[in-house]
Amino acid sequence: MGIVLGANQYGKAENRVVRIYRDPGGGGRHEIRDLNVSTSLRGDFADAHVTGDQGGVLPTDTQKNTAFAYAKEHGVTSPEDYALALGRRLLTACPAAAEAVIGVEEYAWDRLTDHAFLRRGTETRTVEVVAGETTAKVRSGFTDLTVLKSTGSEFKGFLVDEYTTLAETDDRILATSLTATWTHGLDGIDHRPGIDWEASYAAVRALLLETFATTYSRALQESLHAMGRVVLQTYDAIAEISFVAPNKHHFLVDLSPFGLENPGEVFIAADRPYGLIEATVTRDEE
Amino acid sequence: MGIVLGANQYGKAENRVVRIYRDPGGGGRHEIRDLNVSTSLRGDFADAHVTGDQGGVLPTDTQKNTAFAYAKEHGVTSPEDYALALGRRLLTACPAAAEAVIGVEEYAWDRLTDHAFLRRGTETRTVEVVAGETTAKVRSGFTDLTVLKSTGSEFKGFLVDEYTTLAETDDRILATSLTATWTHGLDGIDHRPGIDWEASYAAVRALLLETFATTYSRALQESLHAMGRVVLQTYDAIAEISFVAPNKHHFLVDLSPFGLENPGEVFIAADRPYGLIEATVTRDEE
Amino acid sequence: MGIVLGANQYGKAENRVVRIYRDPGGGGRHEIRDLNVSTSLRGDFADAHVTGDQGGVLPTDTQKNTAFAYAKEHGVTSPEDYALALGRRLLTACPAAAEAVIGVEEYAWDRLTDHAFLRRGTETRTVEVVAGETTAKVRSGFTDLTVLKSTGSEFKGFLVDEYTTLAETDDRILATSLTATWTHGLDGIDHRPGIDWEASYAAVRALLLETFATTYSRALQESLHAMGRVVLQTYDAIAEISFVAPNKHHFLVDLSPFGLENPGEVFIAADRPYGLIEATVTRDEE
Amino acid sequence: MGIVLGANQYGKAENRVVRIYRDPGGGGRHEIRDLNVSTSLRGDFADAHVTGDQGGVLPTDTQKNTAFAYAKEHGVTSPEDYALALGRRLLTACPAAAEAVIGVEEYAWDRLTDHAFLRRGTETRTVEVVAGETTAKVRSGFTDLTVLKSTGSEFKGFLVDEYTTLAETDDRILATSLTATWTHGLDGIDHRPGIDWEASYAAVRALLLETFATTYSRALQESLHAMGRVVLQTYDAIAEISFVAPNKHHFLVDLSPFGLENPGEVFIAADRPYGLIEATVTRDEE
Repeated sequence: MGIVLGANQYGKAENRVVRIYRDPGGGGRHEIRDLNVSTSLRGDFADAHVTGDQGGVLPTDTQKNTAFAYAKEHGVTSPEDYALALGRRLLTACPAAAEAVIGVEEYAWDRLTDHAFLRRGTETRTVEVVAGETTAKVRSGFTDLTVLKSTGSEFKGFLVDEYTTLAETDDRILATSLTATWTHGLDGIDHRPGIDWEASYAAVRALLLETFATTYSRALQESLHAMGRVVLQTYDAIAEISFVAPNKHHFLVDLSPFGLENPGEVFIAADRPYGLIEATVTRDEE
Repeated sequence: MGIVLGANQYGKAENRVVRIYRDPGGGGRHEIRDLNVSTSLRGDFADAHVTGDQGGVLPTDTQKNTAFAYAKEHGVTSPEDYALALGRRLLTACPAAAEAVIGVEEYAWDRLTDHAFLRRGTETRTVEVVAGETTAKVRSGFTDLTVLKSTGSEFKGFLVDEYTTLAETDDRILATSLTATWTHGLDGIDHRPGIDWEASYAAVRALLLETFATTYSRALQESLHAMGRVVLQTYDAIAEISFVAPNKHHFLVDLSPFGLENPGEVFIAADRPYGLIEATVTRDEE
Repeated sequence: MGIVLGANQYGKAENRVVRIYRDPGGGGRHEIRDLNVSTSLRGDFADAHVTGDQGGVLPTDTQKNTAFAYAKEHGVTSPEDYALALGRRLLTACPAAAEAVIGVEEYAWDRLTDHAFLRRGTETRTVEVVAGETTAKVRSGFTDLTVLKSTGSEFKGFLVDEYTTLAETDDRILATSLTATWTHGLDGIDHRPGIDWEASYAAVRALLLETFATTYSRALQESLHAMGRVVLQTYDAIAEISFVAPNKHHFLVDLSPFGLENPGEVFIAADRPYGLIEATVTRDEE
Repeated sequence: MGIVLGANQYGKAENRVVRIYRDPGGGGRHEIRDLNVSTSLRGDFADAHVTGDQGGVLPTDTQKNTAFAYAKEHGVTSPEDYALALGRRLLTACPAAAEAVIGVEEYAWDRLTDHAFLRRGTETRTVEVVAGETTAKVRSGFTDLTVLKSTGSEFKGFLVDEYTTLAETDDRILATSLTATWTHGLDGIDHRPGIDWEASYAAVRALLLETFATTYSRALQESLHAMGRVVLQTYDAIAEISFVAPNKHHFLVDLSPFGLENPGEVFIAADRPYGLIEATVTRDEE
């Protein structure tokens, strides 16, 4: 009774493919498909395991490249259609494979404007009350409200030193998972009977979204400051607003090795590291 | 130079308070507030640390009880209002405390019917394609679609043995974080050019939600079976549908030690353990 | 072609069973087995799905009870042996079941003393440096170092109000996932060339573990204070130490409905809510 | 009363810096430091927020580059020493900054051989029992046992197509977070009274670690096969062993823009995507 290789498969898991359609219907309105793509191949890969000969193995790195290239070449009209095309391609490219398994998760985004989007349902509403003997401070807010602009964001003119490799950009994706908190001041507990907290929350949230979506951004810092300023300008009862904003980098994928152009259409959504911007907008004391 | 106690605080974190209003506006329509409540006290608690004397300490267990009792006694018109009341109460109950810090997270639910709700934005759309030389199997679906019924669910008549302690119930909360996948069969890759995957996904999802919300449930198993059956009855192209459904237990909190009734109004949302139901509804071969 | 129930199973997932053997070898040395137990039954459960009749269903709640009772009745000499016994029991108790699937995860603990344990490998070493023009503050520490005492911990004599239901206890499990940070002062960046950071970290960590393990605890607060004090007493260079310590509750399971005694042997490890204790021990200025 | 910018800071979070010392003491023994590094700058950055002028801003991308370059230039004798050096550098590079905040998490690795390491404490022991009327199948194993070889791994000779960009490599880091399960056959429940499950688990785990550490690897597939084969050769009672092994990519960082060589010393540990290898080694039926 011998020892043999049993069931096996290999592939690349969790390719974070983001596909922007920049003008699908004319008029310049963007569409976004946000996918997490995993591929696996099954078939006759015994040599790779037993003798170490990789001659029949299509590397997982190539599977990754194909997943990104196909987001451009074939496109993403639905995750099903994209996965079917990707599966056929991998089977063709790898003769030893008998089956290709393509898994796709899709994350839903709701439209804010022609070029700004809100990821559905990621936010949690938050409150922190610090109650003392005669006073109370109420800090309302939310965590993890994820927003993205597919144009209208630049980053340039920054300080350069010998460790700088970043190129300036006139047009990038700007995305963040925003945590914001705002405070209604340090008045006495009983001094704010009139606040409609439900209406206040909805109004501040809407104003933050609108300002993010419609303001040109020279840095995430500038966007946050603009968002905070308009809240304080609009609502006198709010004393201060603070933001924690990870800059969720979306890197343009280099498709030129495959003879493909990529004018802002296929991105990889990176996990770590990420920029992290924290800022408070407040009222001065004078 | 001596060694002294510096800043300190203590409390109970992450009380999962679920408050159902069973008839706030008349007509029997329910409302839900779903909170994660954390409390902390700061003040003169040196004895607890230095000598071990707990005489001034309001236990974290009591803080937890108060958080649940106040969801009934004070109610939750907004997380801010609830947190302010809870903070005042804890300061009163614990003379050694100078400050109470109340943190609340609120999870948003969208209404399906008068007594059924969909937690906003938890779901992820999924696809798995298994592509072979001449065939392809497409499994569409979603993960983590969280739904809850605040009435219309019983569980009784079950098998009893010497380890049984569960009481029968005529009216409980039924909640699950649903994963569902359905397949369009084993036909050839090129044999399904006509499927509109976007429309199909939206239609199946809507039918599952509607059936969950409007079907009386004698067990989560029965709900799942009804949901699967109606999908297969409605869509001939779908061969099979499978569910993985954790039964997210919501336990009625016993408020009687505090002189309060709790007719289905205050629940604790439990994490672990949870029931886990898996079922497939399919077509027979004959 | 009809619509039929396909493969299905149901059970209780993630029962957090902690079994303490209080004197397995004589001499009073404790042993701990820390398990996450999931059970499922497969068989003829069509009625539960199709007609809603639960007469053949052994509830998941009963499966949970059995998992805890068997930790006492059968014991846990290995997770395999325990799982085999639990599987046989569930098959016997539920005639409709053809198969029982028992999953167990076991978490490893290393021994500190006869009655204190360190969960293997949960901790992460941390450093925070705040560097200014002429000074630097170094805060060394760790997160998530999980320790447990199986005796030598009480909690009593606390403040009682109308929301109190907690009973006093003379002997409980005390467990925490400790985050600690300590600082070497606010001296200039170049004023501490002589610190051996590797040795310092190892020494402070060892002293904290030893003190936790060997000090009788009247509250987690008292344990933390004792741990901080001894570090400051021993290491002059350390200015201050701070702790964040979730009180990871282990509740004694009531086995009396099954005719079993439970003298500190079977616990459920709870997730939420949890106590949260934060304290700093520092040097006074005089 | 005007609206002004309050407290603010920005930086790059969670740079996964892995530093290999290839011959610190002579004799070719490697050392590993595995860090998660976050940097932030505070100071006079009002222009970036208010006018969008980034002239004083050292980009977070440059902070990232510096964190990796300093792992080489300054080295990592301790996380404290490295963080102090990095903080000083960032203050020098960015005149607008008054403070640099450097956070480091360090993950502990235990030595297996001169060039192989085991990440401390990540694994969980697992058991799955499937109990039937007359038989039982026991599947023992573990999840998330994380191992790394700092040399002795190549990947070359693979299939090339038009989407290939991967270069062949003779010497790379091979790391995986291994899940393994092995089964003691399909015998009757009562037919295996003699197995010492505790000893069996320890022995198989040790053999897997030793084989991973000491076998030259032409692919992760080959390593897994060798590990499985030796277990089946050594333990007749084990019928089959299966692996799920994410290939945790460690990419060599290009330090040449900073005039630095990087002969296998500074890596970035990537999160997603990752290779995913699954394989079973079994006994043939004949």
